[in-house]
Amino acid sequence: MAHPVYVAVDWGTSSFRLWLIGKDGSILGERRSGEGMTTAAKTGFADVLASHLAALSVPQNVPVIACGMVGAKQGWVEAGYVDVPASISSILTGAVSVPGQSRDVRILPGLAQRDKASPDVMRGEETQLLGALGPDSKGLQAVCMPGTHSKWVHVQDGEVIGFSTFMTGELFDAVSKHTILSHAVANAEEAQADHSAFRAAVSAAFRQPAMASNLLFTARSGQLLHKLTAAGAQARISGTLIGLEIAGALSDAPNDTPVTLVASGRLRGLYETAFKFLSLKYTVIDADIAVRRGLSAAAEAIWPN
Amino acid sequence: MAHPVYVAVDWGTSSFRLWLIGKDGSILGERRSGEGMTTAAKTGFADVLASHLAALSVPQNVPVIACGMVGAKQGWVEAGYVDVPASISSILTGAVSVPGQSRDVRILPGLAQRDKASPDVMRGEETQLLGALGPDSKGLQAVCMPGTHSKWVHVQDGEVIGFSTFMTGELFDAVSKHTILSHAVANAEEAQADHSAFRAAVSAAFRQPAMASNLLFTARSGQLLHKLTAAGAQARISGTLIGLEIAGALSDAPNDTPVTLVASGRLRGLYETAFKFLSLKYTVIDADIAVRRGLSAAAEAIWPN
Repeated sequence: MAHPVYVAVDWGTSSFRLWLIGKDGSILGERRSGEGMTTAAKTGFADVLASHLAALSVPQNVPVIACGMVGAKQGWVEAGYVDVPASISSILTGAVSVPGQSRDVRILPGLAQRDKASPDVMRGEETQLLGALGPDSKGLQAVCMPGTHSKWVHVQDGEVIGFSTFMTGELFDAVSKHTILSHAVANAEEAQADHSAFRAAVSAAFRQPAMASNLLFTARSGQLLHKLTAAGAQARISGTLIGLEIAGALSDAPNDTPVTLVASGRLRGLYETAFKFLSLKYTVIDADIAVRRGLSAAAEAIWPN
Repeated sequence: MAHPVYVAVDWGTSSFRLWLIGKDGSILGERRSGEGMTTAAKTGFADVLASHLAALSVPQNVPVIACGMVGAKQGWVEAGYVDVPASISSILTGAVSVPGQSRDVRILPGLAQRDKASPDVMRGEETQLLGALGPDSKGLQAVCMPGTHSKWVHVQDGEVIGFSTFMTGELFDAVSKHTILSHAVANAEEAQADHSAFRAAVSAAFRQPAMASNLLFTARSGQLLHKLTAAGAQARISGTLIGLEIAGALSDAPNDTPVTLVASGRLRGLYETAFKFLSLKYTVIDADIAVRRGLSAAAEAIWPN
């Protein structure tokens, strides 16, 4: 086995992902589990990490760099926030050491926007951001990191000038499970996704964001009056919330601001479909690659060879 | 006891309200219960009605006029919809008789908007609308009927030209109970309501509706960064959803369109606060009075003396 140099950990609320990285940046080993902050806060962060390191037989002298909710107040060790505006690379300087460990373990800080009118926080996405853009990005950019709480970051010449959280994923769940629309989407998973209904909903919400909570209701009224299918209703809910998010995220951005989408899997597909239909200029980077690249940048800054 | 002329029933999804009306329009008796459509569909609509009529000793020859979800497909007898555009008074002509009853029982139809892009339906609110405006209203008006599913109706010279449902109340419940914001609002009921946070949120969502799902998240980030209270977080959620609703409902209406608010209790207070803060021209009519007046107009049209 090639010589391991450091361990990179993306430790979120509900997921744990670990990579063992070699000298040339190659991935020597990988672990994934559901032992996110919520679980680890009960079973012990040190034990969770130790078990995954043992599974990969990681030598004692190999250090660990982590990002995400593991650095929250309810996490392992609070890693604080870097306040924006701030350069993307400033998170590299804010890592905290976990005390009492035989191994060198550090956790990266999050970002905070302390503006009274638009307070916001992130943990983990700042590392994805670093990995997606690198420390030296040029010009004005919008970075979209979709998820339970989607983050949109506005960057100017390598400096984070502002960011916003949109509760898109969580609203989709709450609306689909805990409102009258739960009947409208029953068994939608078993059907083919309705891309045309999704695109129409994205466009409607993007053009008329003020109508969002009405557009959601058309998932029901469309069934009562126009035999909309369950898959169509689900696409309408998802498209409405994503269209609303994009409208909000770009509302203060100049036209033609290039968008970097940091996503993987199903979400990547949905957001790409939305961006294309809205004729937005965008590039994509896989979310896993972005977070690993960001953790690597941090490891190389902290432990330079 | 004065001579009873008819019985008026507002029979919604989760509530049942009945008034015994005398010759001069006076209320001779009243019943309220939670035996809405959901309950009555199991226990039997005829039995529910009979028990309340018996409690008031209503003579067998007194007819009953009802509105609301009792006329839905899942209700007692399907009363269909009147399609808009339609005159407010057209619902008077669409009542259906409940077959097999010894007493004359009629259910008023709902309204349907069959437009492909904005399908919508209402049941019960059309009767409130009739009661609030009367059949001969003049000019352009917007009528707001807030609730679990708020309805906004646009009326021109007594004709309903369009309407929209906003899921405001149900979204408030789902967001407050089934998202991360449930922590932010924990125990908010025990504290004094935060009117200033409510007004600020109404205004922010009204001005920037596209930011709605971000403004919701500030109920959490405001606590993390600015010690926002639980009552403040609750006010922010409620204000955001109501501000979004008003922005959407008035987005296509000319400035200065007069608004008629049909509401009672806590909701009336919230919407009045919002309208005042947004400098909207409005009048208020109590929701109970409006539905009773609408049912009375229907009874007098069906059973003229």
